[in-house]
Amino acid sequence: MARETRIHRLSMSGPEDVSAILARIGRGEIAPAAIRAILGKTEGNGCVNDFTRGYAVASLKAALAPLVPPGALDRISMVMSGGTEGGLSPHWLVFEEIATDAPAGPPALAIGVARTRALAPAEIGRVAQAELVREATLEAMAEAGIADTAAVHYVQVKCPLLTAERVAHAGGPSAVATTSMIKSMGLSRGASALGIALALGEIEPQVLTDAAIGDDWSLWSGRASCSAGVELEDCEVAVLGLSDAWSGPLRIAHGVMADAIDAPAVADLLAGFDPAFRAQLSPAGRDRFVALLAKAEASTAGTIRGARHTMLDDSDISSTRHARGFVGGMLAGLTGTTELFVSGGAEHQGPDGGGPCAAIWREG
Amino acid sequence: MARETRIHRLSMSGPEDVSAILARIGRGEIAPAAIRAILGKTEGNGCVNDFTRGYAVASLKAALAPLVPPGALDRISMVMSGGTEGGLSPHWLVFEEIATDAPAGPPALAIGVARTRALAPAEIGRVAQAELVREATLEAMAEAGIADTAAVHYVQVKCPLLTAERVAHAGGPSAVATTSMIKSMGLSRGASALGIALALGEIEPQVLTDAAIGDDWSLWSGRASCSAGVELEDCEVAVLGLSDAWSGPLRIAHGVMADAIDAPAVADLLAGFDPAFRAQLSPAGRDRFVALLAKAEASTAGTIRGARHTMLDDSDISSTRHARGFVGGMLAGLTGTTELFVSGGAEHQGPDGGGPCAAIWREG
Amino acid sequence: MARETRIHRLSMSGPEDVSAILARIGRGEIAPAAIRAILGKTEGNGCVNDFTRGYAVASLKAALAPLVPPGALDRISMVMSGGTEGGLSPHWLVFEEIATDAPAGPPALAIGVARTRALAPAEIGRVAQAELVREATLEAMAEAGIADTAAVHYVQVKCPLLTAERVAHAGGPSAVATTSMIKSMGLSRGASALGIALALGEIEPQVLTDAAIGDDWSLWSGRASCSAGVELEDCEVAVLGLSDAWSGPLRIAHGVMADAIDAPAVADLLAGFDPAFRAQLSPAGRDRFVALLAKAEASTAGTIRGARHTMLDDSDISSTRHARGFVGGMLAGLTGTTELFVSGGAEHQGPDGGGPCAAIWREG
Amino acid sequence: MARETRIHRLSMSGPEDVSAILARIGRGEIAPAAIRAILGKTEGNGCVNDFTRGYAVASLKAALAPLVPPGALDRISMVMSGGTEGGLSPHWLVFEEIATDAPAGPPALAIGVARTRALAPAEIGRVAQAELVREATLEAMAEAGIADTAAVHYVQVKCPLLTAERVAHAGGPSAVATTSMIKSMGLSRGASALGIALALGEIEPQVLTDAAIGDDWSLWSGRASCSAGVELEDCEVAVLGLSDAWSGPLRIAHGVMADAIDAPAVADLLAGFDPAFRAQLSPAGRDRFVALLAKAEASTAGTIRGARHTMLDDSDISSTRHARGFVGGMLAGLTGTTELFVSGGAEHQGPDGGGPCAAIWREG
Repeated sequence: MARETRIHRLSMSGPEDVSAILARIGRGEIAPAAIRAILGKTEGNGCVNDFTRGYAVASLKAALAPLVPPGALDRISMVMSGGTEGGLSPHWLVFEEIATDAPAGPPALAIGVARTRALAPAEIGRVAQAELVREATLEAMAEAGIADTAAVHYVQVKCPLLTAERVAHAGGPSAVATTSMIKSMGLSRGASALGIALALGEIEPQVLTDAAIGDDWSLWSGRASCSAGVELEDCEVAVLGLSDAWSGPLRIAHGVMADAIDAPAVADLLAGFDPAFRAQLSPAGRDRFVALLAKAEASTAGTIRGARHTMLDDSDISSTRHARGFVGGMLAGLTGTTELFVSGGAEHQGPDGGGPCAAIWREG
Repeated sequence: MARETRIHRLSMSGPEDVSAILARIGRGEIAPAAIRAILGKTEGNGCVNDFTRGYAVASLKAALAPLVPPGALDRISMVMSGGTEGGLSPHWLVFEEIATDAPAGPPALAIGVARTRALAPAEIGRVAQAELVREATLEAMAEAGIADTAAVHYVQVKCPLLTAERVAHAGGPSAVATTSMIKSMGLSRGASALGIALALGEIEPQVLTDAAIGDDWSLWSGRASCSAGVELEDCEVAVLGLSDAWSGPLRIAHGVMADAIDAPAVADLLAGFDPAFRAQLSPAGRDRFVALLAKAEASTAGTIRGARHTMLDDSDISSTRHARGFVGGMLAGLTGTTELFVSGGAEHQGPDGGGPCAAIWREG
Repeated sequence: MARETRIHRLSMSGPEDVSAILARIGRGEIAPAAIRAILGKTEGNGCVNDFTRGYAVASLKAALAPLVPPGALDRISMVMSGGTEGGLSPHWLVFEEIATDAPAGPPALAIGVARTRALAPAEIGRVAQAELVREATLEAMAEAGIADTAAVHYVQVKCPLLTAERVAHAGGPSAVATTSMIKSMGLSRGASALGIALALGEIEPQVLTDAAIGDDWSLWSGRASCSAGVELEDCEVAVLGLSDAWSGPLRIAHGVMADAIDAPAVADLLAGFDPAFRAQLSPAGRDRFVALLAKAEASTAGTIRGARHTMLDDSDISSTRHARGFVGGMLAGLTGTTELFVSGGAEHQGPDGGGPCAAIWREG
Repeated sequence: MARETRIHRLSMSGPEDVSAILARIGRGEIAPAAIRAILGKTEGNGCVNDFTRGYAVASLKAALAPLVPPGALDRISMVMSGGTEGGLSPHWLVFEEIATDAPAGPPALAIGVARTRALAPAEIGRVAQAELVREATLEAMAEAGIADTAAVHYVQVKCPLLTAERVAHAGGPSAVATTSMIKSMGLSRGASALGIALALGEIEPQVLTDAAIGDDWSLWSGRASCSAGVELEDCEVAVLGLSDAWSGPLRIAHGVMADAIDAPAVADLLAGFDPAFRAQLSPAGRDRFVALLAKAEASTAGTIRGARHTMLDDSDISSTRHARGFVGGMLAGLTGTTELFVSGGAEHQGPDGGGPCAAIWREG
C-alpha cells in the first residue's frame, strides 16, 4: 500500500471560478478529502492591491467547506500567485494524495506539508525565520517520506509580513527588520528561501546573517518558491520531491535559470522526459507534461547579458509584472503551453535575475 | 562594383541617446551619407501617448543634420517602435548602403526604399491604400535590385492615420473608413500589410475588399511590418531581401509564427544559419547573429492553443504591451539576446495572434 | 405608521471587509432584514478586470446569508462601483427601510426598487431596453410612494451586457447592437439612462432611436447612475427621492455638473442644506452630510472649457480612472470628505463630460 | 525705470509643441532675450521614465537657440513637471523680465534666479545641500530686489540626484545618503525645501539634521516647490515674490493646503483678488487669474481626515499620479480652469499630505 500524488491542472475563467474543480469532484475524479494543496495562478497584478488571490481562496473555501470534514479545510495548503502577464493562462493546480495498491515502482512524486510556529514580528525577514523554515522544510520532507535532500525539487513557502500593527506590537521600528510593508515581503520571502537553502544544504549556516538577507544575492536556493501573505503569522511549507514511498506515474525534476533568458537550462529539464524536445516539447512530450513551476524577476543590475532592460525604471508597470510576462513567454515557447505557474518576487530564489524552475510530468 | 548593406546594432540609454551612433561616425565606422534607414526600439508604451518615438527621431535629426548634405536627412527612413516590455533592450539598427569592390558572391542583404504619393483621407485603411503600397513595394524591390518576390524577407511600412482634421477635410465621417484615430491606425497598418501581400503574391487581388481590411484575418503577409504615424501623409516602404546585385556577408531569411508561442517556427529560422542551435543560438550562432525583426499581438479569440489569455481584458496594461513582452521573452530565449526589434499592432501581418519574424545574420 | 430610510456610511479595509456592517448588526443598529440596498465603492480599476466588485458582493452575501430569511438576500440591491482614484475612500452605503411611528413631517428620503424582465440580447443597448427601464423606474417610484417625477433625485440601474455567448445565442452579430463586450457596457448604460430620462420626462419619446443611443449626447438624464454587470440578464432599478409617505430626518436633492470642473453646480446643491457653505461644507454642514453620489467622465471633445485634457490619449491609465480621481478631488474639496460615491461610465447620464450629482443629508 | 515681469500661459499639443511660444515671439509679444524662466506642465507620468520633460526642454532649446545670444539659453531656467492626470492641461508658463518706465505703483511680481555650486554626491539629500540652497535662495531674493522674506511667495528649485556613477565616485554606499536613485530624488527635493525654509525663516537652523531630512515631516516650507533632475549637478533656484523695485499689474500670494482636500485654504487665496469668489473664481476673477502653482502628494499615514486612501497601495498607478489628479481636480474646480501647474513629490514642501499653493493674478 503506497501513497500516490495526483495533480489536476484546471483552467479558470476568473478568481471566483471553481467550476472545473467541482466538476471533477462531481465525476468522482477528485476526492475532496484527499486534497493536500491547491496552487492557483490568478489574473491580478501580483502586487500589493491584487485582490484576485484573496478572492480565489475565498471562492475555494466556500466551495470546498461543505465537502470536507470540519477542520480539513485548514489543512489544505492554498497558494495563489497573482499575475498572468503576456499570454499566461489563469489555472488551478490541485494536488491530491491518495492511497494506492499499485505495484512498487521507481520513486514517484511525493508531497509533504509542515508549518512553523507563529513568528514574532522581530523574527520576520531575519535568520530566526530562516531557522524555522529550515526545520519545517525538514519536517515536510519527513512527512513526505523523502530522506535525501537531492530528491527535493520544489519547496513552496507561504510566509508572513510586517504590518504597521505588527511593528507597533514588536516595540517599534528598532525592533524589526524594516518598517516598510512591501520591503518586509521581500525580506520574508528571502529569509524563507534561505531557510530552504539551509535545509537542502545549498548554503552553509555560517554564511547566513541578518545583514545578508535581502542583500547578498550570491546566496540562494535552486528549489525555493516563496510568497508572503498578510493573512499568516506562521510559515507554511510544502515540499515536492521524489520518494520510493510513493507510487504512480508522476515525476519531478528541477533546473535553475541563470538569467531571464536561460532557455538552455529549461530545455535540459524538459529534454529529461522528452527526448524529442528541440525548441519546444514534442507532441509526445506535451502529452506527458503536467506542470511547470518557476520564479522570475528583473535583475537588480538593470541588464541582461550586458544589455540594458527597462523593468526597474518603468513607473507604469511593476518590474514583477514585466518579468513574469517575459520569462513566461520564454517558458511557454519551450513547453508549448501557457498554463504555467510563473511567479515573481524571487529574492534568494535562484541567482539574481534568474530563478528556479521545476517540471512535473507523467512517466510512460 | 557591388552594393553592400552594413548594419550597426547599437544600444541607447534613452530616446535622446545617439552617442553610440556618433561614436561610430567619429571613428569612421559609419558614413553619415551612407545611412539608408534607422530603426529604433524605444522604451515608451508603444501606444498613443508614447513620446519616445518622436523624441528619438528628433534626437537623430538634430545629431545627423550637421553631418549630411541638405535634403539627405529626409531620405533616411526612420522607424521607431515603442515598447521594450519585459527584458527587451532599447537599441538602434542603423542600415548603411556602401559601394564595395568585393568579389561577387552569393546573393546578399539588399535594401530598397520607396514612397507612395500622399494619401487622401478617404483612402486610408482601404483598398486604395493597399494598391499604393503594392506599387511602392514593387518600386522598392526594383530600387533594391530584387526581382523575385521570394527573395523579399521583410517589408517595413510607415503609413498615415486619420485625425479629426483629416476626417473633417475629407468631408466628414461618411467619407472615411473610421472616425476613431486609434482604429484608423490599425486599419492603415492592415491596408499596408495587405498591399505588401499583394505585391509579394501572398493574396489574390480579388479577395481584397474594403470590408476585409481589419476583419478577415485569414488574409495576411508573412513579411510585413507596418506602423502608423501621425506625422506622415504618404506611405514609406523599406524592403529587405536578398539580391545578387549586392555583396558582403549579410543574409536574411524569415519565418511566420502561427501563434504567440510558436518557438519551432523561429527555431527553424535560426537553425538555418546556426546548425548547433538547440533551445538557443549556440555561441557561434550568436556571433553571426545581427538582428531579429518580429511582430507580436494578442489573438483576438482570447486564447492561445485553447487556454484563455487575459491580455484583452486587462484595463491596466495594453494588450500590445503584454504581447511584446511575452513574445519578446520567447524570442530572447531563442536568440540569447534582448536587443530584438519586436513590435506590436500586427493586423494582417502574419496570422491572428502570430506574426512574421525575420532574421539577419553574417555569413562565415 | 410611516416608512423611514436609514443610511449607514461605513468604511472598509478591502473588498472582503464587511466587519463594519456586521458590527452595526451586532449592536442592533442595522436590522439585516430591513436592508434594501447596499452600494459599495471598491478599490479596483473600475474597468473590465476589476474583481473587487464581485469579491465585495460575494463577501456581503456570505456574511448576510445566515442573518436573513431565505430568498431575502436576492431582494437586496447590491451595486458596487470600482475605482477610488486619488484620495477617494472605499466604503459601503447601507440603505435600510424601517417602519416608524414618528409624527408626520415634511417629505423624507424614500427608496423603491423594481426589476425588468430578462432582456433578450437583441434588446440590449437599444430602445427596447430604454422602454423596459422606463417602466421599471415608474414601478420603483410607485413602490417608493413617489408620485411626482420632480421628487426623484437619483436612479441607480444595474443592467446586463453582451457577451460572446449572448451574441451567438441571439443569432450572431447582425442581431445585436454591437459585438464588443466593452462597447455593449456603454450602450447598455446609455439605454438605461435614457429609459430613466423617459420616465422622468427629461426627454421626449420621439427623439429616442437606436441610433441616438451612444451617439447623440444632447440626450441625457440628470438623475441617472447606471452600471453594467455581466452577472445580470434583467435591469435592476433603485429610485431615491422624496415622499410624504416616508418620515425621518433624511433628505435628498440633486444637481447636474455641466462639465468636470463645475464646482458651482455642486456648491449650490450643498448650500441647500448648509447655509454656511463657502468653498467647503462648514463643520455644521458636514455633521448633517450623509452621502454624495455622482458620475464622472472625460469629455469626448478632448477639452475642458477649451483647454486640452489628455485622458483619452493615455494608454497607461483608463480615462474613467482619470475622470473619477479628478472629479472626486473637486467633490472632496467641496464636501470635506473623501467617502464619496463617484462612479464612471456616464453615457447619457448628464451632459458630455459632466454628470449628475445627488446629495443626501440629515435635517436639523 | 523699473523692472516688470510678464507671464504667458500657453497651451501645448505635446512636449514638442513650442508653436504657441514662437507665435508670440513672431508677433513681438515675447522678446526671446527677455525670457528668464519657462515652466512646463507636460503629459508624461511624472516619474522615472517620463521622457516628456526632456523632450520639452530639448524642443524649447532647439526653438530658442537661434533667437537668443550665445550663452543666454543656459541662463533661462527651464523646469518641466510631468503629469497632467485627470483633466489637467499641458501648458507652458513663460516668464519674461522687461524694463518699463511705467509709473511706480505698489509692489509687483518680481523674479530672481541663482545657482549653487556643484554638489558633491555626499552632500545630496543632506544638511549641506540645504545650506547651499539657503544661500542661493537669499541670492535669488537679492537678485529679485526682495528684501523681506515675507514678500517671497514661491521658490522653485531644480536639484540633482544620486546615480550609480555618482555613488561610486563618492566612494560607495557608506559615503552617500542613499544608494537608491528614486529615494535620492525625494531626499534631494526635501533638502532643497528645507534650505528654502531656512532662508525664509520657516524653520530654525538647529532643528535641521541629516536624519530629519525625509523623516521629520513636521519641518516644511510653505513656499517651496522642488524637483530633482538627473541632468544637474548644482541647484537652480528661482524666487517669485513682491518687490517695489518691480512694476506692472502682476501680483502673487500663497497659501498652504493642510491636506489634499483643503479647499478653504485655496479659496482664501483666490478670494484675495476675487471678492466675488464663492466655490469658483467669478468671471471677473478668472479674467484676472494668471497662474496657480501647487504641490500635491499622498499623505504617508494612508488617510485623509481619518478616511483611508488607496494611493500608496496601488501597484498600477503611482501615488504621485493619483495625488496630482485628485488635488488638480479640486484646484480646477476652485479656479475654473485646468491649466494649473500642479506637481508631485512634496517632501518638506507643505505639511504631510498637503502642500503649498501660490496664485498669480493681474491687478485692476
